[in-house]
Amino acid sequence: MRLYMGLVHFPVYNKAYQRIASAVTTLDLHDLARLARTYGVKRLFIVTPLEAQKKLAQRVLTHWQKGYGAHYNPDRKAALSLACVVDSLDRATADVQQREGVDPVVVGTDAAAQGERPLSFGRARHMIRENTPVMLVFGTAWGLHIDFINSMDHVLPPITGIDGYNHLSVRTAAAIILDRLVGDLSWAAQ
Amino acid sequence: MRLYMGLVHFPVYNKAYQRIASAVTTLDLHDLARLARTYGVKRLFIVTPLEAQKKLAQRVLTHWQKGYGAHYNPDRKAALSLACVVDSLDRATADVQQREGVDPVVVGTDAAAQGERPLSFGRARHMIRENTPVMLVFGTAWGLHIDFINSMDHVLPPITGIDGYNHLSVRTAAAIILDRLVGDLSWAAQ
Repeated sequence: MRLYMGLVHFPVYNKAYQRIASAVTTLDLHDLARLARTYGVKRLFIVTPLEAQKKLAQRVLTHWQKGYGAHYNPDRKAALSLACVVDSLDRATADVQQREGVDPVVVGTDAAAQGERPLSFGRARHMIRENTPVMLVFGTAWGLHIDFINSMDHVLPPITGIDGYNHLSVRTAAAIILDRLVGDLSWAAQ
Repeated sequence: MRLYMGLVHFPVYNKAYQRIASAVTTLDLHDLARLARTYGVKRLFIVTPLEAQKKLAQRVLTHWQKGYGAHYNPDRKAALSLACVVDSLDRATADVQQREGVDPVVVGTDAAAQGERPLSFGRARHMIRENTPVMLVFGTAWGLHIDFINSMDHVLPPITGIDGYNHLSVRTAAAIILDRLVGDLSWAAQ
């Protein structure tokens, strides 16, 4: 499995649907890194172009990768060791290209827009199991900018519940998406 | 569907596996309420016996249910309106009994222990779809105390990823469990 994840802080929407760079939520780093470790994701890229936000994110990562946190909680170290901070998604995909020798298929996620090139969860699951390098991209704040989504290879359908309300946090949406794409489905037969 | 959720802060384990009452994490309230709203959960009970923690949780809920937050973000209001604060899980199940006219089946969740009465995700899903009142119980900190789990009707299997690492946050674990129990499974056929 050659699965990668990006947590993107620019370009995303704010509440007024303006294009912004969002602030890093440190808990997102923990929750997504723990998900990455659980589901065999090879690397989690924290994407922000803002210097102060890069420093904040790197400080959190260093604490758990090498600082006091690494001794205090080795399970957390194992998770956060998968994370790194980059300026842009292009930097992240270039890193994957270097590791895998081939560009990853970039797959966006969104609570609403299907974008121009939708990809079903089933097909994405199949792609990952076939060992295609895949970069799953999650947006913070009010979600990834639509132009940015349309620059990606594909976009997954929104997670819908029972009646169309779909205002999940990026943490919980990422959890559901990873379980659908990578999780053991044998539970459904039991 | 007559599904309820409890987020329990006592009795849970701390890192040293001592029985404690944990502090309320306000982000848990948001993430679990948004999950509850998405997946049609009728009520989310925030369970803590500590007066100061009850006040903190209630203050957060009131802000989003009736205060400035209710106007600022009606989607968040819709989610957090499903939440309430109670002293104990017994209080929560008594509330459900009063609403539904029958005691809920209490189903614990745990990252490790299967407890004395395991219940598969498939069987739990079936139970919920048959309209049996079910109370899903999530633990904070290092998880629900085993004696407490064994006092429940059932316990779900842990969420395992690819190699046994299962140190998810309660937020992301709850997301995966709700999607497995209630989510539309038609994606798997696409």
